[in-house]
Amino acid sequence: MSSEPWGVNPDRALPAEPTQRGIARELYRAVADLPIISMHGHIDVGAILRNDAFGDPAEMFIIPDHYLLRMLVSQGITHEQLGVRPLDGGGFETDHRMVWRRFAENWKLFRGTPTRYWMEHELSLIFGITEAPSAATADAIYDQLSETLARPEWHIRPLFDRFNIEMLSTTDAAHSALTEHAALAAEGWGERVVPTFRPDSVFYPDRADWRSEIEALAGVSGIDIVDYPSFLEALQQRRFAFVAAGGLATDHGHLSADTTPLDAIEAHRIFAEALRGPVDTAAAATFAANMLFESARMSVQDGLVMQLHPGVARNHSAPNFRAFGADKGFDIPQNVEFTRALQPLLDAFGFEPRFRLILFTIDETVYSRELAPIAGAYPAVKLGAPWWFLDSPDGMMRFRELVTESAGFYNTSGFVDDTRAFASIPARHDLARRVDAGYLSKLVAEHRLGIDEATETIIDLAHTLPLAAYARRA
Amino acid sequence: MSSEPWGVNPDRALPAEPTQRGIARELYRAVADLPIISMHGHIDVGAILRNDAFGDPAEMFIIPDHYLLRMLVSQGITHEQLGVRPLDGGGFETDHRMVWRRFAENWKLFRGTPTRYWMEHELSLIFGITEAPSAATADAIYDQLSETLARPEWHIRPLFDRFNIEMLSTTDAAHSALTEHAALAAEGWGERVVPTFRPDSVFYPDRADWRSEIEALAGVSGIDIVDYPSFLEALQQRRFAFVAAGGLATDHGHLSADTTPLDAIEAHRIFAEALRGPVDTAAAATFAANMLFESARMSVQDGLVMQLHPGVARNHSAPNFRAFGADKGFDIPQNVEFTRALQPLLDAFGFEPRFRLILFTIDETVYSRELAPIAGAYPAVKLGAPWWFLDSPDGMMRFRELVTESAGFYNTSGFVDDTRAFASIPARHDLARRVDAGYLSKLVAEHRLGIDEATETIIDLAHTLPLAAYARRA
Amino acid sequence: MSSEPWGVNPDRALPAEPTQRGIARELYRAVADLPIISMHGHIDVGAILRNDAFGDPAEMFIIPDHYLLRMLVSQGITHEQLGVRPLDGGGFETDHRMVWRRFAENWKLFRGTPTRYWMEHELSLIFGITEAPSAATADAIYDQLSETLARPEWHIRPLFDRFNIEMLSTTDAAHSALTEHAALAAEGWGERVVPTFRPDSVFYPDRADWRSEIEALAGVSGIDIVDYPSFLEALQQRRFAFVAAGGLATDHGHLSADTTPLDAIEAHRIFAEALRGPVDTAAAATFAANMLFESARMSVQDGLVMQLHPGVARNHSAPNFRAFGADKGFDIPQNVEFTRALQPLLDAFGFEPRFRLILFTIDETVYSRELAPIAGAYPAVKLGAPWWFLDSPDGMMRFRELVTESAGFYNTSGFVDDTRAFASIPARHDLARRVDAGYLSKLVAEHRLGIDEATETIIDLAHTLPLAAYARRA
Repeated sequence: MSSEPWGVNPDRALPAEPTQRGIARELYRAVADLPIISMHGHIDVGAILRNDAFGDPAEMFIIPDHYLLRMLVSQGITHEQLGVRPLDGGGFETDHRMVWRRFAENWKLFRGTPTRYWMEHELSLIFGITEAPSAATADAIYDQLSETLARPEWHIRPLFDRFNIEMLSTTDAAHSALTEHAALAAEGWGERVVPTFRPDSVFYPDRADWRSEIEALAGVSGIDIVDYPSFLEALQQRRFAFVAAGGLATDHGHLSADTTPLDAIEAHRIFAEALRGPVDTAAAATFAANMLFESARMSVQDGLVMQLHPGVARNHSAPNFRAFGADKGFDIPQNVEFTRALQPLLDAFGFEPRFRLILFTIDETVYSRELAPIAGAYPAVKLGAPWWFLDSPDGMMRFRELVTESAGFYNTSGFVDDTRAFASIPARHDLARRVDAGYLSKLVAEHRLGIDEATETIIDLAHTLPLAAYARRA
Repeated sequence: MSSEPWGVNPDRALPAEPTQRGIARELYRAVADLPIISMHGHIDVGAILRNDAFGDPAEMFIIPDHYLLRMLVSQGITHEQLGVRPLDGGGFETDHRMVWRRFAENWKLFRGTPTRYWMEHELSLIFGITEAPSAATADAIYDQLSETLARPEWHIRPLFDRFNIEMLSTTDAAHSALTEHAALAAEGWGERVVPTFRPDSVFYPDRADWRSEIEALAGVSGIDIVDYPSFLEALQQRRFAFVAAGGLATDHGHLSADTTPLDAIEAHRIFAEALRGPVDTAAAATFAANMLFESARMSVQDGLVMQLHPGVARNHSAPNFRAFGADKGFDIPQNVEFTRALQPLLDAFGFEPRFRLILFTIDETVYSRELAPIAGAYPAVKLGAPWWFLDSPDGMMRFRELVTESAGFYNTSGFVDDTRAFASIPARHDLARRVDAGYLSKLVAEHRLGIDEATETIIDLAHTLPLAAYARRA
Repeated sequence: MSSEPWGVNPDRALPAEPTQRGIARELYRAVADLPIISMHGHIDVGAILRNDAFGDPAEMFIIPDHYLLRMLVSQGITHEQLGVRPLDGGGFETDHRMVWRRFAENWKLFRGTPTRYWMEHELSLIFGITEAPSAATADAIYDQLSETLARPEWHIRPLFDRFNIEMLSTTDAAHSALTEHAALAAEGWGERVVPTFRPDSVFYPDRADWRSEIEALAGVSGIDIVDYPSFLEALQQRRFAFVAAGGLATDHGHLSADTTPLDAIEAHRIFAEALRGPVDTAAAATFAANMLFESARMSVQDGLVMQLHPGVARNHSAPNFRAFGADKGFDIPQNVEFTRALQPLLDAFGFEPRFRLILFTIDETVYSRELAPIAGAYPAVKLGAPWWFLDSPDGMMRFRELVTESAGFYNTSGFVDDTRAFASIPARHDLARRVDAGYLSKLVAEHRLGIDEATETIIDLAHTLPLAAYARRA
């Protein structure tokens, strides 16, 4: 389709204007080869421990990637046709070559999206594909990818070096025994792959799986969770276990950013009620807010960096959730509020030297109104990178434009990817570095910043700041 | 005033940067002469049937155009001075040359607005005016326009060819008998001019005219509306009449996007209460939400595409509404929410192959947060074009920037104008094509898209997608 | 740090693209030397009357500037280390050379912020500093600034001429006796320095200092405030005193934009209750809303222009407020709503020829959705300049991009700074003129506006419109 030979251009995603492009090239060169710090990912630690292969092209690129699924589904292709197994045991496409063909035939749907950008980078630069996906090229690309993926040097562990990944954090349930992390550490990978403590499933007592999650937490912690204090004790025990396993951070995916603490009696009461049976949504929400406050308090003790990313209506489509389960492309953002919601937590811990809170949003309206002013004042707060739907060229540019003037660069965490797709990690970090080069090139071209300052800044954004932001607070 | 000779530049509204401009020119040339699909307009079908003349310049350009009125009123000129007849029978300017002069003298107020852009296009390209409006030029322009407008080839029907309008939809009340559409069809215009079903006036039982609108609906449908079921039956009857008359879509201008269905008993109760007397605003709002749900259900049956554009506080100024009535420039947008509001409707019909929902907003905060993620997942949903206050160069550019990365191009409807001003139709479509050329030229110049892909995309946006989006779902 | 010699570039903050830059230079030259109209500032009238010196560099640039304080505090430096005196009498840095060093060492934190931009302008252009602040240069710069600031020609009054300030408004409490303004007027400065009436402290009856503020108002007005009518009478008396002293405007910093009037009985009741003792926050908010409505009514009488800037959660950090008091960098914006909130006021006074309302926001989401449509319709309304966190290069550019297409240029007030830092006034106005030049250069380069029109427009924005917007409505 394209009149250029297919493949990625060295200047891709840099500004078109020649003066800016020249500056941006120079800035990008300063960071192009820096190692990757990947502190907010969703890679399976077991796959790393076992040094798994990625399977066939559909298994690697399509079936587990909610970005790709959602776009194809939005145009009338069904999850079943894309190889997703229905929970009711119904039929679905098991010929993965057919799944790949459906993707390749619909390549044009991804125009202008980050998926297009990442896939181009992966297929062209990583896998050496020389033609754009299409009905005509689908089979040949499938064969070439399959052949490559079968080779041992394309299993997951060697790719850490190929991708220049210095450090990667997995996301782990509060009740994780961390045995795989321990085994990895025993093999000398303990500083390269670290766990992140994610307790959402035990913070929302209205979730269907709450009781089983609590039981799992009790089991792994060895603490009999019979009431709110023993629950807190089990959490603290696990947090120390995460610290001992090299963990640097916690991660919290709440619906709202509310951090209002409950008084002890009320927290006791809701927890006891939940142990006995169902809790209503409103009570569960107040309990979850309280647990954010308690998590911050624990962070002051154990130094784990706290990450909060609120505002997603998970499993927005009830029928789709019933049919295929979670993470199938039907989580939809909603409006979110930070200024009032964070006030209790910040009043208590906003100036604590041992406390760090990294904030994420997919509601861009809070960038200039709330997040940048908060991060530009409270010493405990850093702004995470644009996330999920906003992890895109224009999305990342808007983040810098809307945040920098109030928060500067040094109250942001630097780039943090958030991916389940291992092969997209280098593409995502490369793109973020290009967008930062573009933003900084504008400041330089408009004489708002010197080139030497911009060079130092982009190195900080790519490497220094992520390392510093996630350093456990000692 | 201007140092350039007055008139429109061939490169107007294309990016200034030379590389982008070159690409944008090439893309624009690919669509400049494509026919116009105008599926969301407010042109009077009677005027088309009668092949009306447009009257004098004030009658054509000023008095019916709320964009022009509101800007002049905002600077202290009164509606009366602009030739708008007060409802109380008070005096107003009847010398339309004076009305035109007031506009011409205040030409500078429109700098930077789309009205300025459209008017320049219309006056220069369509009517051959060679000087900017001003106190000095007002009379000469008035005379030249008057002379042109009086000629038969400037009546409305010949302008369909001159403007290259392939298909135009009018907006028609639920109780419209569609007699004018039938008469047009009898003259062979049935595929060129189609009706759209707009039932708002019978969906809000707190409106002052609700009862008379219901009676009109009963009259034209021949169904005695005595309760909620007979109301639904009358609606369905009219929808089939619209389908038979070539109608492709329904249109819903609600205050909120709420689509929560009522249980049958409650819907019955509110409808019965409304038939007896006044209904409070809250009950009316729940009824209107229910009717959006019911409209979607009917669309699954009859295949009419459903359009929803919520979020406008109509007749914001009560004194102005009392003095001059509706559509006089005093409708003001307010914040709107889609993620939760649409959930009931999407749970029920979001995957129905026969259902299509096109969403419009004038609250830009929902573009990246709600609309693009929803349209990028649900097969039933498309995003309409930027609308009303956002139908402007920068507004359309922001739409693409904020929507494309999550929804792509192919979950948008392509350009849809929304005008009462017939002569502005080609200017609006031309501008939209220029802005899309500018947006796509950036993707090409930044190596994010090939030029051949961009060319195919802009043709789709200008012509293919609007036709496809409004094709009745068979 | 920078590879360019330090100092400000003549093209700073103008667009990088050469065509636009050339146009922008020409536009900027047309306004670079126009006098400054500074109608929304926070300079102490007493300092002007006494012709104060500014003290040492820390006293001039750091300790009173909440922008600088907040950024340094956000990185872990304490208020005490920055020379801010704790209210509890605790220790703090009294060596201002040390305070200056802490700022200079942390110069990089301000990259990309307007503080960086203003400080560069001030240090380089106003004070002749030739090196960037750093640990190495801190002392030399401190000495050079100290030496300059001690000279009589660097006291505040001569700087009015050096800075080309034509007119400056101070902000004065409702109970100000205006004696300093009277004394200034007696010295011939009455037209150059005028008061603005700011009654917030007596509008919120839940404020801790409300009673003492009421007593002060009673004292200065000579009216015994025993009930709501005598309160209104005292307010009106002071407003006339402000008018007599040359005052042109009132200023209202409310939490919300609500303007719903209370019926007289309810207003009486709340006021009487407040005189007796504490009033709850909800009642206080309804009273404050009512007072906005009443202020508008009074403006119709006395012609004072009404300014409203809602949406800031003042003293967001309770611990920081207790430790250091107000205006120390911990005011955080929150979401705000205008469309419904202003309806009562606009229904009553939106078409009053003697009424003018200038609206400010730091919630950008209302620009295109609410503020521009409102200002583009109601004759009484103008939009103030981007304010506080938004008084920045990108913030001002977004304001024009989001507002102009619906409101045009002539429903905006032109640039209005909002500073406590006197030396930043020329930098801020210069930057605003550069950003407007950049915005207009895009319109010209894209053939959306002629260069002569753009030149007239930028002159209007810089000088004509601020003068006109704040002209008392006679």
